[in-house]
Amino acid sequence: MATKSWEERVADKKSRLEKTIPPEWRIKTPPTGDSFMSYPKESGILSNGELAITESNATDLVRKLADGELTSVAVTTAFCKRAALAQQLLNCNLEFFPDMALAQAKGLDDYYAKHKKPIGPLHGLPISLKDQLRIKGLECTMGYVAWIGKFDTEDSVLVALLRKAGAVFYVKTSVPQSLMVCETLNNIIGRTVNPRNKNWSCGGSSGGEGAIVGFRGGVIGVGTDIGGSIRVPSAFNNLFGLRPSHGRLPYANMANSMEGQETIHSVCGPMCHTIDDLRLFVTSVLAQMPWQYDAKVIPMPWRPAEEENIRRKMASGGLTLGFYSCDGNVLPHPPVLRAVDTVVTKAKEAGHTVVSWEPYKHPYAVDLANRIYAADGGADVFTTLKESGEPAIPNFKDLINPTLPKLDINRTWDANLEKWNYQNEYLAKLRELEEKLGREVDAIIAPITPTAAVRHDRFKYYGYATAINVLDFTSVVVPVTFADKNVDVQNASFEPLTEMDKTVQAEYDAEAYNGAPVAVQIIGRRLTEEKTVAIAEELANLLGTNK
Amino acid sequence: MATKSWEERVADKKSRLEKTIPPEWRIKTPPTGDSFMSYPKESGILSNGELAITESNATDLVRKLADGELTSVAVTTAFCKRAALAQQLLNCNLEFFPDMALAQAKGLDDYYAKHKKPIGPLHGLPISLKDQLRIKGLECTMGYVAWIGKFDTEDSVLVALLRKAGAVFYVKTSVPQSLMVCETLNNIIGRTVNPRNKNWSCGGSSGGEGAIVGFRGGVIGVGTDIGGSIRVPSAFNNLFGLRPSHGRLPYANMANSMEGQETIHSVCGPMCHTIDDLRLFVTSVLAQMPWQYDAKVIPMPWRPAEEENIRRKMASGGLTLGFYSCDGNVLPHPPVLRAVDTVVTKAKEAGHTVVSWEPYKHPYAVDLANRIYAADGGADVFTTLKESGEPAIPNFKDLINPTLPKLDINRTWDANLEKWNYQNEYLAKLRELEEKLGREVDAIIAPITPTAAVRHDRFKYYGYATAINVLDFTSVVVPVTFADKNVDVQNASFEPLTEMDKTVQAEYDAEAYNGAPVAVQIIGRRLTEEKTVAIAEELANLLGTNK
Repeated sequence: MATKSWEERVADKKSRLEKTIPPEWRIKTPPTGDSFMSYPKESGILSNGELAITESNATDLVRKLADGELTSVAVTTAFCKRAALAQQLLNCNLEFFPDMALAQAKGLDDYYAKHKKPIGPLHGLPISLKDQLRIKGLECTMGYVAWIGKFDTEDSVLVALLRKAGAVFYVKTSVPQSLMVCETLNNIIGRTVNPRNKNWSCGGSSGGEGAIVGFRGGVIGVGTDIGGSIRVPSAFNNLFGLRPSHGRLPYANMANSMEGQETIHSVCGPMCHTIDDLRLFVTSVLAQMPWQYDAKVIPMPWRPAEEENIRRKMASGGLTLGFYSCDGNVLPHPPVLRAVDTVVTKAKEAGHTVVSWEPYKHPYAVDLANRIYAADGGADVFTTLKESGEPAIPNFKDLINPTLPKLDINRTWDANLEKWNYQNEYLAKLRELEEKLGREVDAIIAPITPTAAVRHDRFKYYGYATAINVLDFTSVVVPVTFADKNVDVQNASFEPLTEMDKTVQAEYDAEAYNGAPVAVQIIGRRLTEEKTVAIAEELANLLGTNK
Repeated sequence: MATKSWEERVADKKSRLEKTIPPEWRIKTPPTGDSFMSYPKESGILSNGELAITESNATDLVRKLADGELTSVAVTTAFCKRAALAQQLLNCNLEFFPDMALAQAKGLDDYYAKHKKPIGPLHGLPISLKDQLRIKGLECTMGYVAWIGKFDTEDSVLVALLRKAGAVFYVKTSVPQSLMVCETLNNIIGRTVNPRNKNWSCGGSSGGEGAIVGFRGGVIGVGTDIGGSIRVPSAFNNLFGLRPSHGRLPYANMANSMEGQETIHSVCGPMCHTIDDLRLFVTSVLAQMPWQYDAKVIPMPWRPAEEENIRRKMASGGLTLGFYSCDGNVLPHPPVLRAVDTVVTKAKEAGHTVVSWEPYKHPYAVDLANRIYAADGGADVFTTLKESGEPAIPNFKDLINPTLPKLDINRTWDANLEKWNYQNEYLAKLRELEEKLGREVDAIIAPITPTAAVRHDRFKYYGYATAINVLDFTSVVVPVTFADKNVDVQNASFEPLTEMDKTVQAEYDAEAYNGAPVAVQIIGRRLTEEKTVAIAEELANLLGTNK
């Protein structure tokens, strides 16, 4: 039997992917500018009704679907069309299956016609998925050539539960090879670009989700995050994103690299346009009791009492928030510093107490995270690459050196212990500040990356995101503003803190970044999703970014 | 500098330990029989009041302490005296510090006198601790000669929180070298025996706790469990015990072997005489919000609603319980089979539904657990032994072969994944049964060991306990009965299932076991402590063992 070369396997996959777009959804005249944001309206491919649907938020859509004002077929068609445009413009889809989606939508409409009620809280709503989630009958390549042609026989638990809640699946989006990179590039479909400017990265590893939801080819996207992979693409695409703590949402039977690495857990979470949509996603999943299906999920339903407590606090004395602009390794670019400052100012104006938080040993946490990500010397990833013969993407090659020694099991256990001790020390530092203030610190405002949406192949420093993964704190991405070349001027007297800082600072170019989205993360302690989302909502409302 | 031999270091430690017992608490005429249970009354060392205090349950004691009916000094003195007897008869104490305890008790009495109220829910109550818990100023050898002379500078988190809740510390009890054994033997103080019969094991690894609480030298003991170490000594000493799921109670800054091994987590929990006491311990710890101190603890206060739900169910339709008597590897001895049968019968008579549960792939789980316990080829333990030159105890040598190869990191990750998949399959099997029955399965009744309290050096099969550690299910030990040579006759036509089964069966001797305690475990899903404790309470009440 002649074995196909990896290039042949890619060609086959790409040709199958191209065929998923029917002629009537094909772009005749491609846009000429760098931004694709206005193209859907100009394309003539979507009707006004379809434009309106795709520009709605999910909470409105599920209400209309539940009221019978919209059919799932209409909503699914609209998103499929826009996702087809996204595929052609952004190169964001690894799987696209409008026929299967429309059949599922039709089934839900039939259910509704018969029972006169929705099947679940997401009845009829299309949800886009990172290509780590398995859907029975489809491939899940995760950007690996070796996995082309392997068709799944079972849904991931999250997919099965979203299905039970009434969601419709239509697209699985691209990721960087290995998932360990915050840009989106692989040897199957190449690079995914940012819909606001094709010269910018869409972020990663849930970059396909960032791009498609940013483009409104999706309304809620499902990403995963082990080192910023939900937060970075959310930030780069002006989206809200939730990185819940480990154990809150089901991850069972998803594809992954370095499966079983549990010192720092990957978690899944939503990326979307509003806080309501973010909450809709999480409450809909928790309502399916995921702990009955995935042993790692904590039996903890959504806790409205936690939201009420914090709202009461907001209404009375106000919140107490910490903030930091610099983690001690790398100073963020001017747009990011301005974003943090904007949030702090708005919060203070609204009567909240905002105090400076000294990020405790973040360089240590970042170093620990890097050691853990490289713990097997890349063996798992390189084995998969070798299977097909495809080369490593440069970004991964830069990160993990295949000649690195593997950690010995006792040193792996040491790393587990180091992490736990660090987490506990962090809690002690928080208690110390609280004792000093005489009040609880409700959340911390911080950068996610040192840059606004970055130019391709320039993402270098993961530390603002990864320190939070080490802590396993809950983090909510809140869009703040856009880089502005007239305002965001580099400090000329800057002295780099580290070599990495020098590299990152050198990369700043006010012109190139002009207009790039900037976000902050609102960080809460472990398993405080209700509270942290409510605080993020308050801040986003003050900023006017929660539409 | 001349280095002391390990024997010299032991001699020094033992002599210091002996000196902790004042002359008036020393035994003049040692008891002659095999059982020490009636000795405290006969000794003349405890007053009638002190006998009454030590024979009370903790819930009554904290009420009386809170009402001012008893002082902490009186209660602490009583338990110190009885613990001194325990030290002399059972050889169960690795640390004994009545002076420090009485000073702490005095401080609490002063607090009470001044504030007219208790300092916390455990105000003035002595609590015994397994010698894995660190107390500032004391040694924590965990039975390792190498750790003699290392004095702790900080409390374990659990100790600090118990202290905040008002508990008094007076003793740290013995463990087997390495902790990985279900009997209690080390090179420092030797063997700890069962108070009901010195020829029986007190169990392990929390064997010192089992012995001292069984003897009522303690009222609530704190043990830990990675493979049965709370449940086995609870069972062997006629006690209730709780192995909570990982993440419910704080474990930070405790000593351990193989620290950082997190495929199967060790957890801590109480061992005591009544379900009320068990609940008192857990609610008192959770009231201190341990998640603010230990990052692994889930922010989940005690949930009375979960108890109310299950009580409502018990009052109406009744519970649905699964049970198994054999795990497919080893058939329990007749007293254990009878115990399971007794619980099943009592539950049915009370109107509960009890159905047979096929233990899903337990031999696989047991094998997985054994592979994980031996994952570093014993490197961590043997390194500590080498430090002092002490030999391995036979029980550990039998378990772990120091020439075993260490697991490669990728195989370690595979083991993590194997565990998770197994857990998820188990949940699927439970759902399957529930779908068949059309009702929820509330808990499962099962053996803890194949034997009643075993003779020394005969503990061979850990699987009934370890399968539950792999699942991370909540388990509550319920005392059921005592072996009876007239009833518990071996089945002559027995055909062994495995080599291990043959070994275990051959060990049965109705005469030797006569009178030995037998318990079952009540198993609930992960993080269902409230519900599982309530079910255990119902069953213990039906059995009449919840005094």
